[in-house]
Amino acid sequence: MQRAIDWVDDEIRLIDQTRLPDELVFLRVTALDPLIDAIARLAVRGAPALGVAGALGVAQLARTHADDEAAVREGAARLRAARPTAVNLAWGVDRALSRLGDGAAAVLEEALAIRDEDIAACAAIAVRGADLVEELVARRPIRVMTICNTGALATVERGTALGVIGELFERGTLEEALPLETRPLLQGSRLTAWELAQMGAPFRLLVDGAAASVLARGLADVVLIGADRITANGDTANKVGSFSLALAARHAGVPFLAIAPETTVDPATPDGDAIEIEERGADEVVAFRGVRSAPEGTRTLNPAFDVTPASLITAIVTDRRVVRTDRGETPA
Amino acid sequence: MQRAIDWVDDEIRLIDQTRLPDELVFLRVTALDPLIDAIARLAVRGAPALGVAGALGVAQLARTHADDEAAVREGAARLRAARPTAVNLAWGVDRALSRLGDGAAAVLEEALAIRDEDIAACAAIAVRGADLVEELVARRPIRVMTICNTGALATVERGTALGVIGELFERGTLEEALPLETRPLLQGSRLTAWELAQMGAPFRLLVDGAAASVLARGLADVVLIGADRITANGDTANKVGSFSLALAARHAGVPFLAIAPETTVDPATPDGDAIEIEERGADEVVAFRGVRSAPEGTRTLNPAFDVTPASLITAIVTDRRVVRTDRGETPA
Repeated sequence: MQRAIDWVDDEIRLIDQTRLPDELVFLRVTALDPLIDAIARLAVRGAPALGVAGALGVAQLARTHADDEAAVREGAARLRAARPTAVNLAWGVDRALSRLGDGAAAVLEEALAIRDEDIAACAAIAVRGADLVEELVARRPIRVMTICNTGALATVERGTALGVIGELFERGTLEEALPLETRPLLQGSRLTAWELAQMGAPFRLLVDGAAASVLARGLADVVLIGADRITANGDTANKVGSFSLALAARHAGVPFLAIAPETTVDPATPDGDAIEIEERGADEVVAFRGVRSAPEGTRTLNPAFDVTPASLITAIVTDRRVVRTDRGETPA
Repeated sequence: MQRAIDWVDDEIRLIDQTRLPDELVFLRVTALDPLIDAIARLAVRGAPALGVAGALGVAQLARTHADDEAAVREGAARLRAARPTAVNLAWGVDRALSRLGDGAAAVLEEALAIRDEDIAACAAIAVRGADLVEELVARRPIRVMTICNTGALATVERGTALGVIGELFERGTLEEALPLETRPLLQGSRLTAWELAQMGAPFRLLVDGAAASVLARGLADVVLIGADRITANGDTANKVGSFSLALAARHAGVPFLAIAPETTVDPATPDGDAIEIEERGADEVVAFRGVRSAPEGTRTLNPAFDVTPASLITAIVTDRRVVRTDRGETPA
């Protein structure tokens, strides 16, 4: 599969994820406003991919405003605020910005290093995550439930939680993946199902509300989620519905793993109470791809993320380590 | 509001709920096959309404085949099997059928008695349920979360869980209702939001996956669900997602009430393990109102219901009594 986001011919090139699974369309981004727009409307999404997007965005700003550091910093601040919950976006922006004193070429070099590190991190995560799943689950082959999209589309290549599923599939130990459709934006249905189909892995899609009973009926052996921000104590912000899934996994006695690059760990945030949760608009809830379901004028409550307490997480897997939260370990 | 199902001009008249909230369309049903079709495609749905539909269907059969008892019984058996999980459908069919020996007029009389008893039961449920909510919740005004549609559309008039919300609204003790959209068929978004808007009650709609975090943030004071079947020990089959919601309510320390007519109690079924869960087709999950979200060929796991164990239910409220499952009481 082609990279979800990359630097090609001096431009940012990214897959427009709002067009999937209908068509594979690439966007070429050459200015700040279209990039912020792409981030805000989720054309590019997924915590690691947002880190790369932030860094490449700063690199582009540095090239455009080579003699105007203030303009670069002002643009970077706007880019940093395009979405509030994912720590990676701010992290990618800040890291690229840290090289600004060395010139535009150095900033680009840093952004490309972030891209390459993400590719390497996902490769390491896949192996470490699959090893842990095979250790925790006795049954063969293994049935894996997951939420949202944490695949190649959420990173640069391969992915985090879905990368682990891909690794299990390549090892021959995957019976089936059970992706949740992940309302409101249906990343599971549109993106994860598309990636699983691309890789030829067996899967069955289910609505978010069915996860608890499917787990209680013993139809899944492990639950894997990605992460948008992991706090010092192990509380994990991720796509809304993850917390519900963690409660269901606990009730069913099924291991629940958060899979993310080490950069998702935010030691400066002590616990989940300190995480700002992005509240998104009503249009995502009252309609689906332009087709309205609720009556006109319906108000909504639409948090994009939720926080799963560390007490419900069996382990956190990063590219560098396994944090056994079930044994009282904390990431920071 | 007009009755969701009724006997008008010697025909069954029902609101086609698949057309809401876009338009209010009535179906006039004069034969068995269209009735079974209306039940199967959920044009008429909701456990109590299905009981009335089953009884009126038998009454219509008895009038059509006045001299052919075998034909009536054969048709009744098909009608009874149109949906497997709700006990009310079979109950309504059987009760009407019990008068077959007294002639078609007696069967119709029995069916109309079921309709009138449902109206009376919903009126009693609303008062008893609202009384219990006001007893269990100290906060005023009260914020009520609910799932699926349990309103007038699910019964003949007023409803069960949504009837309680309507009663609280009329008493002036409702701050807002928080209906879940209820994938896959979006009864919360299409029907409950429509009914709440009709009654002028304040509400905010949310996706099913948001319920757990909204409860954990202290934004709802009580959760009310309907029921499709309540077993002898209090285990309750209801729309898929209810079990997940019960786990979330328990985690948040919020009372969780199942609200249903006494006829929903099935003393012959000892517990939830004995309930057959209807598995529905992939089309409900991969698309929404004709708009596809998942890639072509996507397989699904689509249980229409789940079973909430009695241990997660604070109380069961019927038209005749309150069963305090939290104090070890059982309905049978």
